[in-house]
Amino acid sequence: MTLIEKARKGIITEEMEVVAEYEGLDPGFVCDGIARGNIVIPKNRLRDFENIRGIGRGLRTKVNANIGSSPYHMDVEEELRKLGAAVEYGADSVMDLSLGRKLIEIRRRVLDASSVMVGTVPIYQTAFELSLKKRVITDMTIDDFLSTVEKQAREGVDFMTIHAGVNLNALHALETDRRVLDVVSRGGSFLIAWMRKNRRESPLFEFYDDILDVLASYDVTISLGDGMRPGATADATDRAQITELVTLGELAQRAWDKGVQVMIEGPGHVPLQMIEENIRLQKSLTHDAPFYVLGPLVTDIASGYDHIAGAIGGTLAAYYGADFLCYVTPAEHLRLPTVEHVREGVIASKIAAHAADLAKGMRYAREMDDKMSRARKDLDWKTQIEMSINPRKAKALRDSSEIGQDEVCTMCGEFCAIKTIKDAGL
Amino acid sequence: MTLIEKARKGIITEEMEVVAEYEGLDPGFVCDGIARGNIVIPKNRLRDFENIRGIGRGLRTKVNANIGSSPYHMDVEEELRKLGAAVEYGADSVMDLSLGRKLIEIRRRVLDASSVMVGTVPIYQTAFELSLKKRVITDMTIDDFLSTVEKQAREGVDFMTIHAGVNLNALHALETDRRVLDVVSRGGSFLIAWMRKNRRESPLFEFYDDILDVLASYDVTISLGDGMRPGATADATDRAQITELVTLGELAQRAWDKGVQVMIEGPGHVPLQMIEENIRLQKSLTHDAPFYVLGPLVTDIASGYDHIAGAIGGTLAAYYGADFLCYVTPAEHLRLPTVEHVREGVIASKIAAHAADLAKGMRYAREMDDKMSRARKDLDWKTQIEMSINPRKAKALRDSSEIGQDEVCTMCGEFCAIKTIKDAGL
Repeated sequence: MTLIEKARKGIITEEMEVVAEYEGLDPGFVCDGIARGNIVIPKNRLRDFENIRGIGRGLRTKVNANIGSSPYHMDVEEELRKLGAAVEYGADSVMDLSLGRKLIEIRRRVLDASSVMVGTVPIYQTAFELSLKKRVITDMTIDDFLSTVEKQAREGVDFMTIHAGVNLNALHALETDRRVLDVVSRGGSFLIAWMRKNRRESPLFEFYDDILDVLASYDVTISLGDGMRPGATADATDRAQITELVTLGELAQRAWDKGVQVMIEGPGHVPLQMIEENIRLQKSLTHDAPFYVLGPLVTDIASGYDHIAGAIGGTLAAYYGADFLCYVTPAEHLRLPTVEHVREGVIASKIAAHAADLAKGMRYAREMDDKMSRARKDLDWKTQIEMSINPRKAKALRDSSEIGQDEVCTMCGEFCAIKTIKDAGL
Repeated sequence: MTLIEKARKGIITEEMEVVAEYEGLDPGFVCDGIARGNIVIPKNRLRDFENIRGIGRGLRTKVNANIGSSPYHMDVEEELRKLGAAVEYGADSVMDLSLGRKLIEIRRRVLDASSVMVGTVPIYQTAFELSLKKRVITDMTIDDFLSTVEKQAREGVDFMTIHAGVNLNALHALETDRRVLDVVSRGGSFLIAWMRKNRRESPLFEFYDDILDVLASYDVTISLGDGMRPGATADATDRAQITELVTLGELAQRAWDKGVQVMIEGPGHVPLQMIEENIRLQKSLTHDAPFYVLGPLVTDIASGYDHIAGAIGGTLAAYYGADFLCYVTPAEHLRLPTVEHVREGVIASKIAAHAADLAKGMRYAREMDDKMSRARKDLDWKTQIEMSINPRKAKALRDSSEIGQDEVCTMCGEFCAIKTIKDAGL
């Protein structure tokens, strides 16, 4: 039985207990959420790892960090350092998006080293392996793809992004309602190229049940990719995006029918005023499947600072109900991220997740904010540093300044408002 | 006549024309907004500067950068470099918050060098000069304060933060509805200490009309300070804050009666779900005076990254109607900012202002986003770099990576989605 099948029978598993304890919730609540499809616990049946986490309704907002090599830059050790940085700063999962000759080696090392769930996008490996055989993505057969999924599942991958919603319907929507920036999803672009070349339905849509069978046998969670996600704020919430989303709702139901846990992926580049409707639409069209958003980026012009544009959109998305934030790094749109970019991206997304959870009234977030604020009132710098989202950076900033009196900081010095109020006996 | 008096008579001044041209609006719209008190153009009658800007309804969201020395760190040249960085990255104003022996020298140099409007908080100078005479802030007389305001106005300061709403009423609210973190406004804390010591009404409230007379004679805009702003998310929208806001509405009206342009300052630390109500309350209680917000910070734990927490809150605030964002730097809560912190703070606030303006449907923002997105579609890296919020950083990021083919980037390399779609002939 898969986890969702056990949940439907009311069987509380160890994973559910771990998640419930982390969240401060009753295991029955978690079990019920999984049974209804509102919560997932991505975990491959063949893999064990320390930080098992649930994603979905009623749980803390989670954060994913994308790592992995590109054909132009492959360094196994660097990817492991990215993994380390992501986990150290609080990522709840990593996705290994490696391309290039070392992709299998990197994935195995990441799976081995990771204390958090690991996701992949199997079509990348399929595309890369075709290219090694001097074939192109439009030559892909369903067997090429299924064999990748099977291999990765056997290695222990916990969740996989599969763009099964990029079908002829979605392509028609794209072709008839033109965009500023067409398609920016790699997986999406592969399948569009495939359909336009072969003039047939996408194999990932046509043979979706076969894919689900493989996933079910390893209890891999499917993350239904949004190949039609807008890559420009001008394209947000358009016909192609919503056509695909409608299909994803149907595909989610079919995954549940096969005993496979499912998440839905979402955009992308979305201007602020459209974020609420994007979340509400996703929730209503997919029967409240957990929503996994990339960003969203609230403007297109923040290159070099897209972690900030993503944190703005991510906070709002999570507040309105997105469950899982895929980080964006400062390197987005420009280059493969470095270890430092990974750290900055995770921290920005953690701020977004925390701010949303605070706004939703989650107790852990309120307690953290209050502990920090009490430390500020007490001019207790040790606790202030400890409670900072990145204590190392907070300490370095404070230590780098000329501190005249221990209890204040160089911003106001003796004219510190908190000290003034304290001295006034309030 | 002051600017607002001219506007009431329908006189279109040069300042109004400059602002209208920058905004792409009719000068009559700007004139009307000033007359109604919905728009301000802070500009001291004795000062000229290049980038005259309006703040308020219907205009682009503006950004302020705080600079200035502290008693522990005074470096005139460094403050001028901060001014340069702030203006280079798009700040529409700077506030010189200097404390310490060089505060007058720094202010004069900043006023001399600045191509943007300059604001101050005169009570800082009053407090500092009292301390030089071995007196304390609770010894302050209204003449001490008025003499500072007069001196600074004569030097050309364009707008001044004056915490005239911190009166006995607000203090009573603070004393009877206790906070996690009391008061974090320096000016606010001075006046609370003053009232608690002297057991009398605050002189800034009692002699408010005298202050207005000085401001009117130099046409200095008053920025009504929020001395009761929450410094902890737990304290947001409480009795002290709203009591002061009610008073600020009344004080705004009295400023208009004296021919003084007025802005209202706002919080501070505000959790996400309270931002909309904070803006709406301010607008309705102050007859739509321009709203100048500090952040707001959507969590207390982002020390070292408060520019991100501030950009999240600032975007939402500006979307709901805040007109002027005071930046927050990564150094907030930890130390006086460096030049680099100033740059990072301005950029984060500019992203917030831009994202809000885009969401409000402002044409300039849409055109910028579209230009960037078209450049992405064309794999036109030169334009992508130019359109980035910080072209220098965007270029450095791209140049630092191993680029195999000129047209793609190291993230996907040959598997670039945009290239794949292009090759598929879409």
